[in-house]
Amino acid sequence: MKALKILSMGKYIPEKQISSTELEKEWNLPEGWVKQRNGVEFRHYANKTETGAYMGARALEQALERAGIRFEELDLLLDASGSFDYPIPHNACLIPAEMGYLDAGVPCWDIDSTCLSFVTALDVASYLLDGKRFKKIAIVSSEISSNCLDPKEPKTASLFGDSAAAAIVALPEAGESSGILAADMQTFSEGALFTLMPGGGNVFPPLRSNDHSDYSFKMDGPKVLKMAMDKLGPFMAKLFEQVDFGLDALDLLVPHQASKVGLDFAQKALNLPKDKMVNVLHKYGNCISASIPVALCEALEDGRLQRGQKCMLIGTAAGLSIGAVIFSY
Amino acid sequence: MKALKILSMGKYIPEKQISSTELEKEWNLPEGWVKQRNGVEFRHYANKTETGAYMGARALEQALERAGIRFEELDLLLDASGSFDYPIPHNACLIPAEMGYLDAGVPCWDIDSTCLSFVTALDVASYLLDGKRFKKIAIVSSEISSNCLDPKEPKTASLFGDSAAAAIVALPEAGESSGILAADMQTFSEGALFTLMPGGGNVFPPLRSNDHSDYSFKMDGPKVLKMAMDKLGPFMAKLFEQVDFGLDALDLLVPHQASKVGLDFAQKALNLPKDKMVNVLHKYGNCISASIPVALCEALEDGRLQRGQKCMLIGTAAGLSIGAVIFSY
Repeated sequence: MKALKILSMGKYIPEKQISSTELEKEWNLPEGWVKQRNGVEFRHYANKTETGAYMGARALEQALERAGIRFEELDLLLDASGSFDYPIPHNACLIPAEMGYLDAGVPCWDIDSTCLSFVTALDVASYLLDGKRFKKIAIVSSEISSNCLDPKEPKTASLFGDSAAAAIVALPEAGESSGILAADMQTFSEGALFTLMPGGGNVFPPLRSNDHSDYSFKMDGPKVLKMAMDKLGPFMAKLFEQVDFGLDALDLLVPHQASKVGLDFAQKALNLPKDKMVNVLHKYGNCISASIPVALCEALEDGRLQRGQKCMLIGTAAGLSIGAVIFSY
Repeated sequence: MKALKILSMGKYIPEKQISSTELEKEWNLPEGWVKQRNGVEFRHYANKTETGAYMGARALEQALERAGIRFEELDLLLDASGSFDYPIPHNACLIPAEMGYLDAGVPCWDIDSTCLSFVTALDVASYLLDGKRFKKIAIVSSEISSNCLDPKEPKTASLFGDSAAAAIVALPEAGESSGILAADMQTFSEGALFTLMPGGGNVFPPLRSNDHSDYSFKMDGPKVLKMAMDKLGPFMAKLFEQVDFGLDALDLLVPHQASKVGLDFAQKALNLPKDKMVNVLHKYGNCISASIPVALCEALEDGRLQRGQKCMLIGTAAGLSIGAVIFSY
């Protein structure tokens, strides 16, 4: 086990809520089309002042307040997001500025494995926490997808939403048993482009086309699901080799809120009772890397996970990666 | 000390070499203008087939060959770059695909602290290497800046070049003393936007303007240098608290190849003999995160660093961050 205690979490949901009914009207789709396909009833879209850094800063402020610590007490700020405010600089350095800490000196860097970024950062943090250089680490996932939705692909476009979440992690106190019990990630590059935003980088530079669609999310949902189905079984078998208990010992499962089909598949494949699984897809949509920590944050707010209980975070990500962390809260 | 041995390195320099004379002619600048201001005589620009993943893959192949190991033996592939091929997916997952390893399962994620990404990834790798889950880690920095240069800002535009480098790191064998002796990073968000590519992210989405300049590097060189000068002294003092030797015990210094003024300042501030400092700025320009590992790779090829000798990697990055790693090779 790698010692790590989630001291607190926080979240930020943009003010503007958009119902699937609104999107159906705007995009000339039959009533009920979106919910039936995606399971999404509402999602939130950031307004112009709600940048990624703004949302991440608000989530982090809430987490810091709940933990009762000040920003300057952090030894590291990890931004763990798939989207970004600027191509340069990286995301993390913008968050202290947004909070007014211009000269704090807290090291800031980004970890990106798209939808799994929070899970990866939590995993990495468990290696970094040494009680010396790294005593308290903040992880922030803040995602804006609403700039990059293509109404010509309504199934994908209606799936996504914007949100942010933050966690403060530290070494547990003496006598506490919080820690990462198992963690793994596998990347299968055959699926690297199954989830894609083609334009805006080295391959297809900005302004090469003026078609908004070239700068929007593309997702081959069936291929992603097929690959996830093929890989999940062997992945889980290898993951559980690290521990001496089985799936039924988990108290809570927080899957990536990828899609209704994805959540249904995960629930059946893992054969877990529905009340152990956190589902916030219907109200927030797929929020890329923020989905898992927002869902975990709400589960904590609702008292669904108690100290000493076991929780698994699991998901797929563009890459195509499959990753999970099992921790004792 | 955190045990870590650089088994090997590799690099890739794009074929197309561009002289400062060519740029001066193209941009109507006086002969000698670029070299005088930046110290850059040549830089290389990637062609369309030389994507970030392509260059990173070639550098990694060379590193793997030099280490005598196969890709599938890696436990982790970290991409440590500031630029990207696509906004989604992240960079690292594209590299195995470029090498033909579609189903390897090697976990792939990105670490981004812009120009310091390689240094940060090396630092992180020293925490991850546990001889169990992580025995061999590849770090790849691959940068293309040539798409994002603004001829209206010739001093910045003429500074940058494209290149890639890779390192394979592992735990040392019994009896070997390779490891990270000291590492630190500090981020001062007052300077978050001193180095900026404004367009293409959440704040200024693609297609908001059709002015190439909005999607190009902006750098306030004097402000960056001023801040670096203010912060370097206290940073170094804190860094060397971790070790029982001084600057004069270093055998090699590999600074970020930020600019001629930056290199001159670092050399004077650290008061090191010039022959201990690696300088490849004149032939490659500033290659963002690839500058430090390309320079280190060349120093190794030239036999300038021997096993057991001490080397410091140091630089500034957009953020504004200052970071360094001192290691025993």
